[in-house]
Amino acid sequence: MRSSMTAELQQQYEQGLQDALQAGYGVLQSGGSAVDAVQAAVVSLENFPLFNAGRGSVFNNVGGHEMDASIMDGSNIDAGAVSGISHVKNPVLLARTIMDKSEHVLLCGQGAEQFAKKQGLQFEDDAYFYNQHRYEQWQQALKEDSISLDHNDKKFGTVGAVALDANGNLAAATSTGGMTNKKFGRMGDSPIIGAGTYANNNTCAISCTGYGELFIRAVVAYDISCLMEYKGLSLKEACHVVVHDKLVKIQGEGGLVAIDKHGNIELPFNSEGMYRGYATENERKVMIYKD
Amino acid sequence: MRSSMTAELQQQYEQGLQDALQAGYGVLQSGGSAVDAVQAAVVSLENFPLFNAGRGSVFNNVGGHEMDASIMDGSNIDAGAVSGISHVKNPVLLARTIMDKSEHVLLCGQGAEQFAKKQGLQFEDDAYFYNQHRYEQWQQALKEDSISLDHNDKKFGTVGAVALDANGNLAAATSTGGMTNKKFGRMGDSPIIGAGTYANNNTCAISCTGYGELFIRAVVAYDISCLMEYKGLSLKEACHVVVHDKLVKIQGEGGLVAIDKHGNIELPFNSEGMYRGYATENERKVMIYKD
Repeated sequence: MRSSMTAELQQQYEQGLQDALQAGYGVLQSGGSAVDAVQAAVVSLENFPLFNAGRGSVFNNVGGHEMDASIMDGSNIDAGAVSGISHVKNPVLLARTIMDKSEHVLLCGQGAEQFAKKQGLQFEDDAYFYNQHRYEQWQQALKEDSISLDHNDKKFGTVGAVALDANGNLAAATSTGGMTNKKFGRMGDSPIIGAGTYANNNTCAISCTGYGELFIRAVVAYDISCLMEYKGLSLKEACHVVVHDKLVKIQGEGGLVAIDKHGNIELPFNSEGMYRGYATENERKVMIYKD
Repeated sequence: MRSSMTAELQQQYEQGLQDALQAGYGVLQSGGSAVDAVQAAVVSLENFPLFNAGRGSVFNNVGGHEMDASIMDGSNIDAGAVSGISHVKNPVLLARTIMDKSEHVLLCGQGAEQFAKKQGLQFEDDAYFYNQHRYEQWQQALKEDSISLDHNDKKFGTVGAVALDANGNLAAATSTGGMTNKKFGRMGDSPIIGAGTYANNNTCAISCTGYGELFIRAVVAYDISCLMEYKGLSLKEACHVVVHDKLVKIQGEGGLVAIDKHGNIELPFNSEGMYRGYATENERKVMIYKD
Protein backbone atom coordinates (compact mmCIF):
# COMPACT_ATOMS: atom_id res chain seq x y z
CA MET A 1 0.00 0.00 0.00
CA ARG A 2 0.96 3.58 -0.56
CA SER A 3 1.39 4.01 3.19
CA SER A 4 4.31 1.54 3.18
CA MET A 5 6.32 3.70 0.73
CA THR A 6 9.10 5.77 2.27
CA ALA A 7 10.52 8.89 0.66
CA GLU A 8 13.86 7.14 0.28
CA LEU A 9 12.37 4.07 -1.40
CA GLN A 10 10.30 6.23 -3.70
CA GLN A 11 13.43 8.10 -4.73
CA GLN A 12 15.15 4.76 -5.53
CA TYR A 13 12.23 3.59 -7.68
CA GLU A 14 12.15 6.89 -9.52
CA GLN A 15 15.86 6.65 -10.17
CA GLY A 16 15.37 3.12 -11.56
CA LEU A 17 12.72 4.44 -13.92
CA GLN A 18 14.87 7.42 -14.94
CA ASP A 19 17.81 5.14 -15.69
CA ALA A 20 15.63 2.90 -17.88
CA LEU A 21 14.20 5.90 -19.75
CA GLN A 22 17.71 7.17 -20.33
CA ALA A 23 18.87 3.76 -21.58
CA GLY A 24 15.97 3.43 -24.01
CA TYR A 25 15.72 7.03 -25.14
CA GLY A 26 19.48 7.20 -25.52
CA VAL A 27 19.29 4.49 -28.16
CA LEU A 28 16.61 6.43 -30.04
CA GLN A 29 18.54 9.72 -29.79
CA SER A 30 21.57 8.14 -31.38
CA GLY A 31 19.43 6.88 -34.26
CA GLY A 32 18.91 3.36 -32.96
CA SER A 33 15.89 1.18 -33.63
CA ALA A 34 12.77 0.83 -31.51
CA VAL A 35 13.59 -2.81 -30.84
CA ASP A 36 17.07 -1.88 -29.58
CA ALA A 37 15.53 0.88 -27.45
CA VAL A 38 12.99 -1.34 -25.68
CA GLN A 39 15.68 -3.96 -25.17
CA ALA A 40 18.01 -1.39 -23.55
CA ALA A 41 15.24 -0.06 -21.30
CA VAL A 42 14.23 -3.56 -20.16
CA VAL A 43 17.85 -4.61 -19.55
CA SER A 44 18.17 -1.57 -17.30
CA LEU A 45 14.99 -2.54 -15.42
CA GLU A 46 16.14 -6.18 -15.14
CA ASN A 47 19.42 -5.03 -13.61
CA PHE A 48 17.63 -2.79 -11.11
CA PRO A 49 17.00 -4.93 -8.00
CA LEU A 50 13.68 -3.43 -6.89
CA PHE A 51 11.54 -4.57 -9.82
CA ASN A 52 10.33 -8.15 -10.20
CA ALA A 53 12.40 -9.09 -13.25
CA GLY A 54 15.97 -10.20 -13.82
CA ARG A 55 18.05 -9.48 -10.72
CA GLY A 56 15.01 -8.53 -8.59
CA SER A 57 12.92 -11.61 -9.49
CA VAL A 58 10.79 -13.10 -6.72
CA PHE A 59 11.39 -16.59 -5.28
CA ASN A 60 9.36 -19.51 -6.61
CA ASN A 61 8.06 -22.38 -4.47
CA VAL A 62 11.43 -24.15 -4.28
CA GLY A 63 13.50 -21.05 -3.57
CA GLY A 64 14.64 -20.49 -7.13
CA HIS A 65 13.96 -17.80 -9.70
CA GLU A 66 11.97 -18.56 -12.84
CA MET A 67 11.89 -15.70 -15.27
CA ASP A 68 9.90 -14.93 -18.43
CA ALA A 69 10.45 -12.31 -21.12
CA SER A 70 9.39 -11.40 -24.63
CA ILE A 71 10.14 -8.88 -27.34
CA MET A 72 8.34 -7.98 -30.58
CA ASP A 73 9.40 -5.95 -33.59
CA GLY A 74 6.46 -4.10 -35.10
CA SER A 75 8.19 -3.62 -38.44
CA ASN A 76 7.91 -7.31 -39.38
CA ILE A 77 5.81 -8.71 -36.48
CA ASP A 78 8.78 -10.91 -35.62
CA ALA A 79 8.98 -11.97 -31.98
CA GLY A 80 11.02 -13.87 -29.43
CA ALA A 81 10.06 -15.08 -25.97
CA VAL A 82 11.32 -17.22 -23.15
CA SER A 83 9.68 -18.79 -20.11
CA GLY A 84 10.68 -20.51 -16.89
CA ILE A 85 14.42 -19.81 -17.11
CA SER A 86 16.90 -19.52 -14.24
CA HIS A 87 20.31 -17.87 -13.92
CA VAL A 88 20.16 -15.98 -17.21
CA LYS A 89 21.18 -12.44 -16.28
CA ASN A 90 18.94 -10.67 -18.79
CA PRO A 91 15.95 -12.71 -19.98
CA VAL A 92 15.02 -10.00 -22.51
CA LEU A 93 18.38 -10.50 -24.24
CA LEU A 94 17.56 -14.20 -24.54
CA ALA A 95 14.15 -13.33 -26.00
CA ARG A 96 15.91 -11.06 -28.50
CA THR A 97 18.41 -13.79 -29.37
CA ILE A 98 15.56 -16.26 -29.93
CA MET A 99 13.93 -13.72 -32.27
CA ASP A 100 17.15 -13.05 -34.18
CA LYS A 101 18.97 -16.38 -34.14
CA SER A 102 16.43 -19.21 -33.93
CA GLU A 103 13.56 -20.39 -36.07
CA HIS A 104 11.35 -20.41 -32.97
CA VAL A 105 9.34 -17.79 -31.10
CA LEU A 106 9.00 -19.27 -27.62
CA LEU A 107 11.50 -21.48 -25.76
CA CYS A 108 10.98 -22.80 -22.22
CA GLY A 109 12.90 -24.00 -19.19
CA GLN A 110 16.11 -25.99 -19.46
CA GLY A 111 15.89 -26.13 -23.24
CA ALA A 112 15.89 -22.35 -23.36
CA GLU A 113 18.87 -22.21 -20.98
CA GLN A 114 20.73 -24.67 -23.22
CA PHE A 115 20.07 -22.39 -26.19
CA ALA A 116 21.23 -19.38 -24.13
CA LYS A 117 24.52 -21.15 -23.29
CA LYS A 118 25.05 -22.06 -26.92
CA GLN A 119 24.54 -18.40 -27.86
CA GLY A 120 26.94 -17.17 -25.19
CA LEU A 121 24.47 -15.25 -23.01
CA GLN A 122 25.59 -14.18 -19.55
CA PHE A 123 24.60 -16.38 -16.59
CA GLU A 124 24.66 -15.40 -12.92
CA ASP A 125 24.65 -17.53 -9.77
CA ASP A 126 22.00 -17.57 -7.04
CA ALA A 127 23.80 -14.87 -5.07
CA TYR A 128 23.23 -12.35 -7.88
CA PHE A 129 19.47 -12.89 -7.68
CA TYR A 130 19.35 -12.97 -3.86
CA ASN A 131 17.48 -10.15 -2.20
CA GLN A 132 16.59 -10.08 1.51
CA HIS A 133 13.20 -8.46 0.92
CA ARG A 134 12.21 -11.00 -1.75
CA TYR A 135 13.39 -13.83 0.52
CA GLU A 136 11.16 -12.61 3.34
CA GLN A 137 8.22 -12.28 0.93
CA TRP A 138 8.75 -15.91 -0.05
CA GLN A 139 9.08 -17.15 3.54
CA GLN A 140 5.82 -15.39 4.35
CA ALA A 141 4.10 -16.92 1.31
CA LEU A 142 5.46 -20.37 2.19
CA LYS A 143 4.08 -20.04 5.72
CA GLU A 144 0.66 -19.09 4.38
CA ASP A 145 0.97 -21.60 1.51
CA SER A 146 -0.08 -18.74 -0.75
CA ILE A 147 0.94 -17.68 -4.21
CA SER A 148 1.15 -13.98 -4.70
CA LEU A 149 1.71 -11.66 -7.53
CA ASP A 150 4.23 -8.99 -6.76
CA HIS A 151 1.50 -6.50 -6.01
CA ASN A 152 0.99 -6.60 -2.28
CA ASP A 153 1.18 -2.88 -2.65
CA LYS A 154 -1.03 -2.90 -5.76
CA LYS A 155 1.78 -1.99 -8.07
CA PHE A 156 2.79 -4.83 -10.35
CA GLY A 157 6.45 -5.72 -10.55
CA THR A 158 6.69 -6.92 -14.13
CA VAL A 159 8.74 -4.54 -16.29
CA GLY A 160 8.24 -3.49 -19.88
CA ALA A 161 8.90 -0.87 -22.49
CA VAL A 162 7.50 0.33 -25.81
CA ALA A 163 9.12 2.62 -28.36
CA LEU A 164 8.65 4.39 -31.69
CA ASP A 165 11.83 5.17 -33.60
CA ALA A 166 12.70 7.79 -36.21
CA ASN A 167 11.90 5.34 -39.02
CA GLY A 168 8.35 4.82 -37.76
CA ASN A 169 9.06 1.38 -36.36
CA LEU A 170 7.34 0.27 -33.17
CA ALA A 171 8.58 -2.32 -30.65
CA ALA A 172 7.61 -3.75 -27.27
CA ALA A 173 9.38 -5.84 -24.62
CA THR A 174 8.33 -7.31 -21.28
CA SER A 175 10.18 -9.17 -18.51
CA THR A 176 9.10 -10.68 -15.21
CA GLY A 177 10.10 -12.86 -12.29
CA GLY A 178 6.54 -14.14 -12.00
CA MET A 179 4.73 -14.83 -8.75
CA THR A 180 6.18 -15.27 -5.27
CA ASN A 181 6.01 -18.95 -4.23
CA LYS A 182 4.96 -19.89 -7.78
CA LYS A 183 4.26 -23.61 -8.27
CA PHE A 184 3.55 -26.06 -11.07
CA GLY A 185 5.52 -24.30 -13.79
CA ARG A 186 2.90 -21.58 -14.04
CA MET A 187 3.28 -19.28 -17.03
CA GLY A 188 1.77 -15.79 -17.03
CA ASP A 189 1.15 -13.38 -19.87
CA SER A 190 4.61 -11.81 -20.11
CA PRO A 191 6.09 -14.36 -22.57
CA ILE A 192 2.87 -14.66 -24.56
CA ILE A 193 2.82 -12.67 -27.79
CA GLY A 194 -0.63 -11.07 -28.05
CA ALA A 195 -1.29 -11.25 -24.31
CA GLY A 196 1.59 -9.50 -22.49
CA THR A 197 3.45 -8.07 -25.47
CA TYR A 198 2.52 -6.96 -28.97
CA ALA A 199 3.89 -4.59 -31.60
CA ASN A 200 2.75 -3.81 -35.11
CA ASN A 201 3.73 -0.77 -37.16
CA ASN A 202 0.13 -0.52 -38.42
CA THR A 203 -1.22 0.18 -34.95
CA CYS A 204 0.71 0.26 -31.70
CA ALA A 205 3.21 -1.34 -29.31
CA ILE A 206 1.99 -2.68 -25.97
CA SER A 207 3.64 -4.15 -22.85
CA CYS A 208 1.44 -5.34 -19.97
CA THR A 209 1.74 -5.92 -16.24
CA GLY A 210 -0.93 -7.42 -14.04
CA TYR A 211 -2.88 -10.55 -13.21
CA GLY A 212 -1.38 -12.72 -15.96
CA GLU A 213 -4.13 -15.33 -16.18
CA LEU A 214 -6.74 -12.67 -16.93
CA PHE A 215 -4.46 -10.92 -19.40
CA ILE A 216 -4.03 -14.24 -21.27
CA ARG A 217 -7.77 -14.92 -21.41
CA ALA A 218 -8.44 -11.37 -22.63
CA VAL A 219 -5.53 -11.41 -25.14
CA VAL A 220 -4.95 -7.87 -23.89
CA ALA A 221 -2.08 -6.55 -26.01
CA TYR A 222 -3.47 -7.75 -29.34
CA ASP A 223 -6.98 -6.66 -28.37
CA ILE A 224 -5.82 -3.04 -28.23
CA SER A 225 -4.20 -3.40 -31.65
CA CYS A 226 -7.39 -4.93 -33.10
CA LEU A 227 -9.64 -2.24 -31.64
CA MET A 228 -7.47 0.32 -33.42
CA GLU A 229 -7.08 -1.55 -36.72
CA TYR A 230 -10.57 -3.02 -37.13
CA LYS A 231 -12.78 -0.62 -35.17
CA GLY A 232 -10.90 2.62 -35.83
CA LEU A 233 -10.44 3.51 -32.17
CA SER A 234 -7.61 5.80 -31.09
CA LEU A 235 -4.90 4.36 -28.83
CA LYS A 236 -6.45 6.23 -25.92
CA GLU A 237 -9.93 4.87 -26.63
CA ALA A 238 -8.69 1.32 -27.15
CA CYS A 239 -6.68 1.40 -23.92
CA HIS A 240 -9.70 2.70 -22.05
CA VAL A 241 -12.01 -0.05 -23.34
CA VAL A 242 -9.54 -2.82 -22.50
CA VAL A 243 -8.07 -1.63 -19.19
CA HIS A 244 -11.01 0.20 -17.62
CA ASP A 245 -13.92 -1.82 -19.00
CA LYS A 246 -13.12 -5.33 -20.31
CA LEU A 247 -10.40 -6.15 -17.77
CA VAL A 248 -12.30 -4.64 -14.85
CA LYS A 249 -15.32 -6.86 -15.67
CA ILE A 250 -13.21 -10.01 -15.22
CA GLN A 251 -11.25 -8.66 -12.21
CA GLY A 252 -8.17 -8.34 -14.39
CA GLU A 253 -6.14 -6.00 -12.27
CA GLY A 254 -3.12 -4.36 -13.88
CA GLY A 255 -2.05 -1.96 -16.56
CA LEU A 256 0.13 -1.45 -19.58
CA VAL A 257 2.41 0.93 -21.43
CA ALA A 258 1.43 1.79 -24.99
CA ILE A 259 2.56 3.92 -27.90
CA ASP A 260 1.01 4.25 -31.35
CA LYS A 261 2.51 4.95 -34.76
CA HIS A 262 1.90 8.70 -34.30
CA GLY A 263 3.85 8.76 -31.02
CA ASN A 264 0.81 9.04 -28.76
CA ILE A 265 1.61 7.55 -25.36
CA GLU A 266 -0.84 5.89 -22.96
CA LEU A 267 0.03 4.40 -19.56
CA PRO A 268 -3.35 3.14 -18.27
CA PHE A 269 -3.86 0.96 -15.19
CA ASN A 270 -6.81 -0.07 -13.04
CA SER A 271 -4.71 -0.79 -9.93
CA GLU A 272 -3.69 1.66 -7.20
CA GLY A 273 -0.44 2.50 -8.89
CA MET A 274 1.98 1.53 -11.63
CA TYR A 275 5.63 2.56 -11.80
CA ARG A 276 5.88 4.22 -15.17
CA GLY A 277 7.49 6.92 -17.20
CA TYR A 278 8.00 8.29 -20.67
CA ALA A 279 10.46 10.34 -22.63
CA THR A 280 9.84 12.43 -25.74
CA GLU A 281 11.78 15.15 -27.48
CA ASN A 282 10.23 17.72 -25.14
CA GLU A 283 9.45 15.94 -21.92
CA ARG A 284 10.63 13.27 -19.51
CA LYS A 285 8.49 12.10 -16.64
CA VAL A 286 8.26 9.24 -14.10
CA MET A 287 5.23 8.45 -11.95
CA ILE A 288 4.03 5.87 -9.43
CA TYR A 289 0.48 6.66 -8.27
CA LYS A 290 -2.59 7.93 -10.07
CA ASP A 291 -2.03 11.60 -9.41
CA MET B 1 2.51 -36.04 -50.17
CA ARG B 2 -0.80 -37.27 -51.41
CA SER B 3 0.99 -39.92 -53.40
CA SER B 4 2.18 -41.65 -50.20
CA MET B 5 -1.39 -42.25 -48.99
CA THR B 6 -2.70 -45.79 -49.42
CA ALA B 7 -6.39 -46.65 -49.54
CA GLU B 8 -6.04 -48.61 -46.31
CA LEU B 9 -4.32 -45.77 -44.46
CA GLN B 10 -6.89 -43.30 -45.73
CA GLN B 11 -9.65 -45.54 -44.42
CA GLN B 12 -7.94 -45.62 -40.99
CA TYR B 13 -7.65 -41.83 -40.84
CA GLU B 14 -11.26 -41.42 -41.86
CA GLN B 15 -12.31 -43.86 -39.15
CA GLY B 16 -10.29 -41.84 -36.59
CA LEU B 17 -12.11 -38.70 -37.67
CA GLN B 18 -15.52 -40.43 -37.59
CA ASP B 19 -14.85 -41.72 -34.08
CA ALA B 20 -13.92 -38.24 -32.87
CA LEU B 21 -17.02 -36.70 -34.48
CA GLN B 22 -19.15 -39.37 -32.84
CA ALA B 23 -17.52 -38.76 -29.44
CA GLY B 24 -18.06 -34.99 -29.63
CA TYR B 25 -21.45 -34.95 -31.30
CA GLY B 26 -22.67 -37.67 -28.96
CA VAL B 27 -22.07 -35.33 -26.02
CA LEU B 28 -24.09 -32.59 -27.74
CA GLN B 29 -26.92 -34.96 -28.68
CA SER B 30 -27.33 -36.01 -25.07
CA GLY B 31 -27.58 -32.35 -24.02
CA GLY B 32 -23.96 -31.93 -22.97
CA SER B 33 -22.00 -28.70 -23.10
CA ALA B 34 -19.77 -27.46 -25.91
CA VAL B 35 -16.74 -27.66 -23.65
CA ASP B 36 -17.50 -31.32 -22.81
CA ALA B 37 -18.02 -32.02 -26.51
CA VAL B 38 -14.68 -30.60 -27.67
CA GLN B 39 -12.96 -32.38 -24.83
CA ALA B 40 -14.52 -35.73 -25.84
CA ALA B 41 -13.58 -35.22 -29.48
CA VAL B 42 -9.99 -34.33 -28.65
CA VAL B 43 -9.62 -37.24 -26.19
CA SER B 44 -10.71 -39.52 -29.03
CA LEU B 45 -8.13 -37.94 -31.38
CA GLU B 46 -5.41 -38.17 -28.70
CA ASN B 47 -6.13 -41.88 -28.27
CA PHE B 48 -5.96 -42.50 -32.02
CA PRO B 49 -2.32 -43.35 -32.82
CA LEU B 50 -2.08 -41.80 -36.29
CA PHE B 51 -2.46 -38.14 -35.29
CA ASN B 52 0.37 -36.16 -33.68
CA ALA B 53 -1.18 -35.74 -30.23
CA GLY B 54 -1.47 -37.90 -27.14
CA ARG B 55 -0.66 -41.51 -28.02
CA GLY B 56 0.56 -40.63 -31.53
CA SER B 57 2.88 -37.80 -30.49
CA VAL B 58 6.15 -37.44 -32.37
CA PHE B 59 9.57 -37.97 -30.76
CA ASN B 60 11.49 -34.95 -29.49
CA ASN B 61 15.27 -34.54 -29.74
CA VAL B 62 15.99 -36.84 -26.78
CA GLY B 63 13.57 -39.58 -27.77
CA GLY B 64 10.74 -38.49 -25.49
CA HIS B 65 7.30 -37.05 -26.10
CA GLU B 66 6.49 -33.48 -25.10
CA MET B 67 2.85 -32.62 -25.52
CA ASP B 68 0.83 -29.39 -25.43
CA ALA B 69 -2.91 -28.83 -25.18
CA SER B 70 -5.47 -26.14 -24.45
CA ILE B 71 -9.20 -25.69 -24.00
CA MET B 72 -11.40 -22.59 -23.85
CA ASP B 73 -14.99 -22.09 -22.76
CA GLY B 74 -16.66 -19.33 -24.78
CA SER B 75 -19.40 -18.79 -22.20
CA ASN B 76 -17.04 -17.18 -19.69
CA ILE B 77 -13.77 -16.97 -21.69
CA ASP B 78 -12.22 -19.28 -19.09
CA ALA B 79 -9.29 -21.33 -20.33
CA GLY B 80 -6.76 -23.98 -19.39
CA ALA B 81 -3.57 -25.02 -21.12
CA VAL B 82 -0.52 -27.18 -20.65
CA SER B 83 2.85 -27.35 -22.36
CA GLY B 84 5.87 -29.62 -22.51
CA ILE B 85 4.36 -32.54 -20.59
CA SER B 86 5.27 -36.22 -20.85
CA HIS B 87 3.43 -39.44 -19.99
CA VAL B 88 0.05 -37.81 -19.38
CA LYS B 89 -2.37 -39.96 -21.38
CA ASN B 90 -4.71 -37.13 -22.39
CA PRO B 91 -3.18 -33.66 -22.32
CA VAL B 92 -6.56 -32.07 -23.09
CA LEU B 93 -7.95 -33.51 -19.84
CA LEU B 94 -5.09 -31.86 -17.98
CA ALA B 95 -5.85 -28.55 -19.73
CA ARG B 96 -9.49 -28.95 -18.67
CA THR B 97 -8.46 -29.75 -15.08
CA ILE B 98 -6.24 -26.64 -15.00
CA MET B 99 -9.22 -24.58 -16.20
CA ASP B 100 -11.60 -26.07 -13.64
CA LYS B 101 -9.40 -26.75 -10.61
CA SER B 102 -6.54 -24.27 -10.58
CA GLU B 103 -6.25 -20.51 -10.41
CA HIS B 104 -3.90 -20.65 -13.39
CA VAL B 105 -4.36 -20.80 -17.15
CA LEU B 106 -1.06 -22.26 -18.38
CA LEU B 107 1.19 -24.78 -16.61
CA CYS B 108 4.41 -26.18 -18.07
CA GLY B 109 6.72 -29.18 -17.86
CA GLN B 110 7.37 -31.05 -14.64
CA GLY B 111 5.30 -28.61 -12.62
CA ALA B 112 2.29 -29.40 -14.80
CA GLU B 113 2.93 -33.14 -14.41
CA GLN B 114 3.07 -32.69 -10.63
CA PHE B 115 -0.28 -30.94 -10.76
CA ALA B 116 -1.66 -33.75 -12.96
CA LYS B 117 -0.55 -36.38 -10.42
CA LYS B 118 -2.11 -34.44 -7.58
CA GLN B 119 -5.36 -34.31 -9.54
CA GLY B 120 -5.28 -38.04 -10.30
CA LEU B 121 -4.92 -37.86 -14.08
CA GLN B 122 -3.95 -41.02 -15.94
CA PHE B 123 -0.29 -41.51 -16.84
CA GLU B 124 1.13 -43.96 -19.39
CA ASP B 125 4.64 -45.31 -19.86
CA ASP B 126 6.89 -44.87 -22.91
CA ALA B 127 5.57 -48.06 -24.49
CA TYR B 128 2.08 -46.54 -24.78
CA PHE B 129 3.46 -43.63 -26.81
CA TYR B 130 5.80 -45.79 -28.93
CA ASN B 131 5.05 -45.97 -32.62
CA GLN B 132 7.38 -47.49 -35.20
CA HIS B 133 6.54 -44.90 -37.87
CA ARG B 134 7.16 -41.97 -35.48
CA TYR B 135 10.41 -43.57 -34.35
CA GLU B 136 11.65 -43.81 -37.92
CA GLN B 137 10.63 -40.18 -38.55
CA TRP B 138 12.73 -39.19 -35.56
CA GLN B 139 15.75 -41.28 -36.59
CA GLN B 140 15.61 -39.66 -40.00
CA ALA B 141 15.38 -36.16 -38.48
CA LEU B 142 18.27 -36.94 -36.10
CA LYS B 143 20.40 -38.03 -39.03
CA GLU B 144 19.65 -34.80 -40.89
CA ASP B 145 19.81 -32.78 -37.65
CA SER B 146 16.52 -31.29 -38.75
CA ILE B 147 13.42 -30.26 -36.88
CA SER B 148 10.21 -30.96 -38.68
CA LEU B 149 6.59 -30.25 -38.18
CA ASP B 150 4.43 -33.27 -38.70
CA HIS B 151 3.61 -32.16 -42.19
CA ASN B 152 6.00 -33.95 -44.46
CA ASP B 153 2.86 -34.77 -46.33
CA LYS B 154 1.53 -31.19 -45.97
CA LYS B 155 -1.19 -32.19 -43.57
CA PHE B 156 -0.57 -30.99 -40.04
CA GLY B 157 -0.85 -33.50 -37.22
CA THR B 158 -2.10 -31.29 -34.41
CA VAL B 159 -5.67 -32.15 -33.45
CA GLY B 160 -8.51 -29.89 -32.40
CA ALA B 161 -12.23 -29.45 -32.13
CA VAL B 162 -14.81 -26.67 -31.86
CA ALA B 163 -18.46 -26.93 -30.87
CA LEU B 164 -21.69 -25.01 -30.38
CA ASP B 165 -24.15 -26.51 -27.89
CA ALA B 166 -27.92 -26.22 -27.50
CA ASN B 167 -27.51 -23.38 -25.00
CA GLY B 168 -25.57 -21.28 -27.49
CA ASN B 169 -22.22 -21.86 -25.81
CA LEU B 170 -19.08 -22.16 -27.90
CA ALA B 171 -15.87 -24.02 -27.02
CA ALA B 172 -12.55 -24.96 -28.59
CA ALA B 173 -9.76 -27.42 -27.74
CA THR B 174 -6.40 -28.24 -29.32
CA SER B 175 -3.74 -30.89 -28.63
CA THR B 176 -0.36 -31.66 -30.18
CA GLY B 177 2.83 -33.67 -29.90
CA GLY B 178 4.80 -30.80 -31.40
CA MET B 179 7.67 -31.15 -33.83
CA THR B 180 9.74 -34.24 -34.61
CA ASN B 181 13.24 -33.88 -33.12
CA LYS B 182 12.10 -30.75 -31.24
CA LYS B 183 14.84 -29.08 -29.17
CA PHE B 184 15.24 -26.30 -26.64
CA GLY B 185 11.81 -26.62 -25.00
CA ARG B 186 10.16 -25.06 -28.04
CA MET B 187 6.51 -24.11 -27.55
CA GLY B 188 4.16 -23.75 -30.50
CA ASP B 189 0.74 -22.13 -30.76
CA SER B 190 -1.39 -25.03 -29.50
CA PRO B 191 -1.20 -24.14 -25.77
CA ILE B 192 -1.42 -20.41 -26.42
CA ILE B 193 -4.86 -18.91 -25.88
CA GLY B 194 -5.47 -16.44 -28.71
CA ALA B 195 -2.97 -18.12 -31.04
CA GLY B 196 -3.89 -21.82 -31.36
CA THR B 197 -7.19 -21.82 -29.48
CA TYR B 198 -9.93 -19.27 -28.77
CA ALA B 199 -13.62 -19.33 -27.95
CA ASN B 200 -16.04 -16.52 -27.15
CA ASN B 201 -19.83 -16.76 -27.26
CA ASN B 202 -19.95 -13.30 -28.84
CA THR B 203 -18.14 -14.47 -31.95
CA CYS B 204 -16.70 -17.92 -32.63
CA ALA B 205 -14.62 -20.89 -31.52
CA ILE B 206 -11.33 -21.64 -33.27
CA SER B 207 -8.71 -24.42 -33.12
CA CYS B 208 -5.59 -24.15 -35.28
CA THR B 209 -3.00 -26.45 -36.80
CA GLY B 210 0.07 -25.35 -38.69
CA TYR B 211 3.41 -23.63 -38.44
CA GLY B 212 3.13 -22.65 -34.77
CA GLU B 213 5.64 -19.79 -34.75
CA LEU B 214 3.74 -17.94 -37.46
CA PHE B 215 0.39 -18.64 -35.79
CA ILE B 216 1.75 -17.11 -32.55
CA ARG B 217 3.04 -13.99 -34.29
CA ALA B 218 -0.27 -13.55 -36.14
CA VAL B 219 -2.39 -14.31 -33.02
CA VAL B 220 -4.51 -16.31 -35.45
CA ALA B 221 -7.44 -17.57 -33.36
CA TYR B 222 -8.17 -14.25 -31.67
CA ASP B 223 -7.65 -12.36 -34.92
CA ILE B 224 -10.63 -14.17 -36.46
CA SER B 225 -12.73 -13.33 -33.42
CA CYS B 226 -11.69 -9.64 -33.61
CA LEU B 227 -12.39 -9.38 -37.33
CA MET B 228 -15.93 -10.59 -36.59
CA GLU B 229 -16.52 -8.51 -33.46
CA TYR B 230 -14.83 -5.23 -34.43
CA LYS B 231 -15.04 -5.23 -38.22
CA GLY B 232 -18.36 -7.02 -38.66
CA LEU B 233 -16.97 -9.77 -40.91
CA SER B 234 -18.74 -13.11 -41.17
CA LEU B 235 -16.91 -16.22 -39.97
CA LYS B 236 -16.29 -17.17 -43.59
CA GLU B 237 -14.87 -13.75 -44.46
CA ALA B 238 -12.71 -13.59 -41.32
CA CYS B 239 -11.31 -17.08 -41.95
CA HIS B 240 -10.54 -16.15 -45.54
CA VAL B 241 -8.66 -12.97 -44.57
CA VAL B 242 -6.56 -14.74 -41.92
CA VAL B 243 -5.85 -18.11 -43.56
CA HIS B 244 -5.67 -17.18 -47.23
CA ASP B 245 -4.27 -13.66 -47.01
CA LYS B 246 -2.52 -12.70 -43.74
CA LEU B 247 -0.99 -16.12 -43.04
CA VAL B 248 0.00 -16.70 -46.64
CA LYS B 249 1.91 -13.38 -46.67
CA ILE B 250 4.14 -14.55 -43.80
CA GLN B 251 4.44 -18.16 -45.07
CA GLY B 252 2.22 -19.33 -42.24
CA GLU B 253 1.20 -22.70 -43.59
CA GLY B 254 -1.70 -24.45 -41.90
CA GLY B 255 -5.38 -24.25 -41.21
CA LEU B 256 -8.07 -24.27 -38.58
CA VAL B 257 -11.52 -25.47 -37.63
CA ALA B 258 -14.08 -22.80 -36.78
CA ILE B 259 -17.71 -22.43 -35.77
CA ASP B 260 -19.65 -19.26 -35.02
CA LYS B 261 -22.55 -18.58 -32.67
CA HIS B 262 -25.04 -19.24 -35.48
CA GLY B 263 -23.59 -22.68 -36.17
CA ASN B 264 -21.78 -21.74 -39.37
CA ILE B 265 -18.80 -24.03 -39.88
CA GLU B 266 -15.54 -23.19 -41.66
CA LEU B 267 -12.56 -25.54 -42.12
CA PRO B 268 -10.06 -23.40 -44.07
CA PHE B 269 -6.43 -24.34 -44.77
CA ASN B 270 -3.70 -23.09 -47.07
CA SER B 271 -1.77 -26.38 -47.10
CA GLU B 272 -2.27 -29.35 -49.42
CA GLY B 273 -4.67 -31.05 -47.08
CA MET B 274 -6.10 -31.07 -43.58
CA TYR B 275 -7.80 -34.04 -41.95
CA ARG B 276 -11.14 -32.61 -40.94
CA GLY B 277 -14.79 -33.28 -40.45
CA TYR B 278 -18.03 -31.91 -39.07
CA ALA B 279 -21.34 -33.14 -37.75
CA THR B 280 -24.63 -31.28 -37.65
CA GLU B 281 -28.22 -32.37 -37.17
CA ASN B 282 -28.46 -33.13 -40.88
CA GLU B 283 -25.02 -34.04 -42.04
CA ARG B 284 -21.80 -35.77 -41.08
CA LYS B 285 -18.69 -35.55 -43.24
CA VAL B 286 -14.94 -36.23 -43.06
CA MET B 287 -12.36 -34.98 -45.55
CA ILE B 288 -8.61 -34.96 -46.11
CA TYR B 289 -7.71 -33.08 -49.31
CA LYS B 290 -9.05 -29.93 -50.92
CA ASP B 291 -11.67 -31.60 -53.04
